[in-house]
Amino acid sequence: MHSFNDLVTGFAEKFNVSHFPGSPSTLYEPCNYFLALGGKRVRPVMCLMGNELFDEIKPDAYEVATAIELFHNFTLVHDDIMDAAPLRRGMETVHKKYGESVALLSGDIMLIKAYEYINRIHVSYLREISTLFSRTAKEVCEGQQLDMDFEKQETVSLDDYLHMISLKTSVLLAASLEMGAIIGGASGGNCRHIYQFGLNLGIAFQIQDDYLDAFGDPEKFGKDVGGDIRQNKKTILLLRALEVASAEQKAALLHLLHTNPTDKVERVLEIFRNCQVDAWANELKAKYVAVAYQHLEDIAVTATRKKPLQELVAFLISREY
Amino acid sequence: MHSFNDLVTGFAEKFNVSHFPGSPSTLYEPCNYFLALGGKRVRPVMCLMGNELFDEIKPDAYEVATAIELFHNFTLVHDDIMDAAPLRRGMETVHKKYGESVALLSGDIMLIKAYEYINRIHVSYLREISTLFSRTAKEVCEGQQLDMDFEKQETVSLDDYLHMISLKTSVLLAASLEMGAIIGGASGGNCRHIYQFGLNLGIAFQIQDDYLDAFGDPEKFGKDVGGDIRQNKKTILLLRALEVASAEQKAALLHLLHTNPTDKVERVLEIFRNCQVDAWANELKAKYVAVAYQHLEDIAVTATRKKPLQELVAFLISREY
Repeated sequence: MHSFNDLVTGFAEKFNVSHFPGSPSTLYEPCNYFLALGGKRVRPVMCLMGNELFDEIKPDAYEVATAIELFHNFTLVHDDIMDAAPLRRGMETVHKKYGESVALLSGDIMLIKAYEYINRIHVSYLREISTLFSRTAKEVCEGQQLDMDFEKQETVSLDDYLHMISLKTSVLLAASLEMGAIIGGASGGNCRHIYQFGLNLGIAFQIQDDYLDAFGDPEKFGKDVGGDIRQNKKTILLLRALEVASAEQKAALLHLLHTNPTDKVERVLEIFRNCQVDAWANELKAKYVAVAYQHLEDIAVTATRKKPLQELVAFLISREY
Repeated sequence: MHSFNDLVTGFAEKFNVSHFPGSPSTLYEPCNYFLALGGKRVRPVMCLMGNELFDEIKPDAYEVATAIELFHNFTLVHDDIMDAAPLRRGMETVHKKYGESVALLSGDIMLIKAYEYINRIHVSYLREISTLFSRTAKEVCEGQQLDMDFEKQETVSLDDYLHMISLKTSVLLAASLEMGAIIGGASGGNCRHIYQFGLNLGIAFQIQDDYLDAFGDPEKFGKDVGGDIRQNKKTILLLRALEVASAEQKAALLHLLHTNPTDKVERVLEIFRNCQVDAWANELKAKYVAVAYQHLEDIAVTATRKKPLQELVAFLISREY
């Protein structure tokens, strides 16, 4: 058994090679540039963990993990185009550095390359894993579309928001674990539990992400605290506040959304606190974490094998950075 | 055995169903809109023909043919974004009608859906066909990148141009035939011949496309004759003319490229004729057709089975419309 950190290091070593030919460099250099921006590689590591929960890690788990990371980067490159984002991890995004057409094609190539890695695994589970991979890929695209749709809508229900973040973020975490589990020889029941573990953990993580953007300690959070508020993003905090606020609070909140006073973040946060959305969000997160833990509990392997997954929960949840 | 036209009709019947769920409609309606614009569906029909050259058509050939057509439409939607094209088959392009972000995601979804169809075929050749499909998909993206690169370059060699059109257009025709052939149980040698048949036919078709845009009969060609010239597109005619023109002709041609006189098309065509690029292009096309026919000849099946492929050549080549 490997610790979460060992797997992070081990995967990075295998992944940090060139996945593309040299030519045409106008297409492949941008791919290499973007992959070199790094990242925690949490999703592929979850695939390795899903495998190792049931059996020692097979080479196929690295193929699928690589496919997952390439797929994730494909979504980032295309999302950056759609969001017109200038920076990613403090560096220029692909469309900013190389132009939109190149970014579009680079993303396409990463997706195709992801399928090439999937296609290398043993035929005995090739179809099953490929099916799960494609279903998840479609769901992630659907989540991105819903996210864009929601930005244009006047109101979004909490349920619709949770559905959207589940598609946009959580299904890939869940599927990463399950694909690893399939390679590890897990039973259908265990596969369902590990998927639900990942799904609920992902939702909890996303709720926390919204929370930290508003209430995080600026020194530990790193990111620009209050960014979502300044951009009027429909976070779960805002949607909840709009649901439970008094008529007066709601009017003040809507006014703030349509203006940009210098103390906008502070004033929105005050309304959030008065509506107790901070405590509510923490409770909701805890609820999803509890469901995730229940599914982890229900996986029929010895408790010691589950330790790395508990480390994963600790890494993803209750972070203050 | 089915005629080319029978296969066109048969495929259209199977393909003209909904390939996508209803929700989110903001994502899937644009996909349905674009697929409904129609087209000849030549590539998927070539897959069916590749199969039937060797054996009766298996259901798997329809799965792969559907994947090919979805892949082709993915490239069209994304190419239209890159080319900022307002129209496709006389109708609004996806990015024009629904916005760039929707077009980007719709294309992504079509590519993923294409892989889902591939994943349905019998595991005995799943890996082989998936490998060929992904290799081809990458090559098509490389061809599109080279095409964009060439537009920015001062000069492009004829060899580089032929390489580009081979990637952008011909490899998909070739692979469509070969994937069908694999399903039909063709030997490795026969697979190589049918691939080369498609590759050379595709290059001949593309040379003809450049030729007809300049020298086609406006009434039969349908498209806007001279469009490439007005847009200063680096067609094979222009590249050849720039190579063989006298210093005086070249100066006149370059001047025309940098200006837009009302009689630009006529004057460029006159230089093309004086440089005999029309006759040269026809000879080059004939050379590729001859190589294609030689590979068709070399496929080890009875001559009568090859008749639909001869109909295909007649359909693609020597068209005047």
